[in-house]
Amino acid sequence: MRVRKRPGAEELVAAHPEYVVQDPEAWKGRWHQRFGNDHPIHIEIGMGKGQFITGMAAAHPEINYIGVEMQISVVSIALDKLIECPLANLQLLHVDGSELTNYFSDSEIDQIYLNFSDPWPKKRHEKRRLTSHSFLEVDETILRPSGEIHFKTDNQGLFEYSLSSFSKYGMILEQVWLDLHHSGYEGNIMTEYEEKFSKKGQPIYRVEARFSDKTKK
Amino acid sequence: MRVRKRPGAEELVAAHPEYVVQDPEAWKGRWHQRFGNDHPIHIEIGMGKGQFITGMAAAHPEINYIGVEMQISVVSIALDKLIECPLANLQLLHVDGSELTNYFSDSEIDQIYLNFSDPWPKKRHEKRRLTSHSFLEVDETILRPSGEIHFKTDNQGLFEYSLSSFSKYGMILEQVWLDLHHSGYEGNIMTEYEEKFSKKGQPIYRVEARFSDKTKK
Repeated sequence: MRVRKRPGAEELVAAHPEYVVQDPEAWKGRWHQRFGNDHPIHIEIGMGKGQFITGMAAAHPEINYIGVEMQISVVSIALDKLIECPLANLQLLHVDGSELTNYFSDSEIDQIYLNFSDPWPKKRHEKRRLTSHSFLEVDETILRPSGEIHFKTDNQGLFEYSLSSFSKYGMILEQVWLDLHHSGYEGNIMTEYEEKFSKKGQPIYRVEARFSDKTKK
Repeated sequence: MRVRKRPGAEELVAAHPEYVVQDPEAWKGRWHQRFGNDHPIHIEIGMGKGQFITGMAAAHPEINYIGVEMQISVVSIALDKLIECPLANLQLLHVDGSELTNYFSDSEIDQIYLNFSDPWPKKRHEKRRLTSHSFLEVDETILRPSGEIHFKTDNQGLFEYSLSSFSKYGMILEQVWLDLHHSGYEGNIMTEYEEKFSKKGQPIYRVEARFSDKTKK
């Protein structure tokens, strides 16, 4: 997601260290302390404007959520939502998804969400896709053994690529949806993008993929 | 595929032992002798009326093909094609797909095709789906190590199920197509069913899945 630079975004983020973590390295291995409980921790990499992760956090108070997003203007929009409706089980992280091992220790995370990630359709940009091999290595490192990635997208090419990429990495495809909104799946929380584009009648694809015990180093 | 019983089908099949193998157990482990060469052997399980397998055999004389089909009326329709346009690299087999280890020895087959298999949509019929665990065990046994299944279907539920079934079995999804006919894929040979139903605008799904070295017993 690319958005226009938002005036005042940096100041807003800096003014809310209780929601947007200012010193994420300092919390590596200690996130349960930050949340003040031992609940599982789920993260969304590329949370965008935050509709999904705030909706999930509101619906599942028994789970801790961390929304990761590298564009500060977008982080600040998610922060708006959190200021308006405070949630004790949600933290925001303004960092790059490729550097998550700096902020999370091995096996610290229970589940990862990827929603409508940038498809980077050109072959030469494959390595930028969040479902490519090197990102999966980072994800596997910070996830508990047998941890899962839950991924949804409307982009056919990215979904085709990702199913194969997960599989070649050694992950198990636990379940696949080729038309999520007509599948009877319950509890789906839509992203802003999903809400907008699913109205055009395009199918939304979804997969739950699990890292195998064997692949965990 | 279910078709009306065709009068004279049994007699026609019996009259052409050069195309429809009469004593398939006798050729177990000796199929290369039957074809008279050492070319790779590809089989289609559930060949239906045979348009795909005869098209493949005509296009690829360097490969031996065996079309497997358990309904004799349908076998006889495929046989009609072969009588009209003889192909030295195609044999037909009137047997049940679950019993293939009776007719092929371990690793004797190089590749398996499944096209528009019966979806058996009810959960209680899962075991009848050709992509379910017990069929994959048979397929793996007769396939060479790292052998592949190439599967296509227009049935969304069967495709969702099959991707996950292949993956849970330990197979690798080498490549996935969510809309084969608009993908630029070259060399696709359509089945009768595919020709008919793709005109309705439904996407055709396809996957190439490989048995892992590790899963081969």
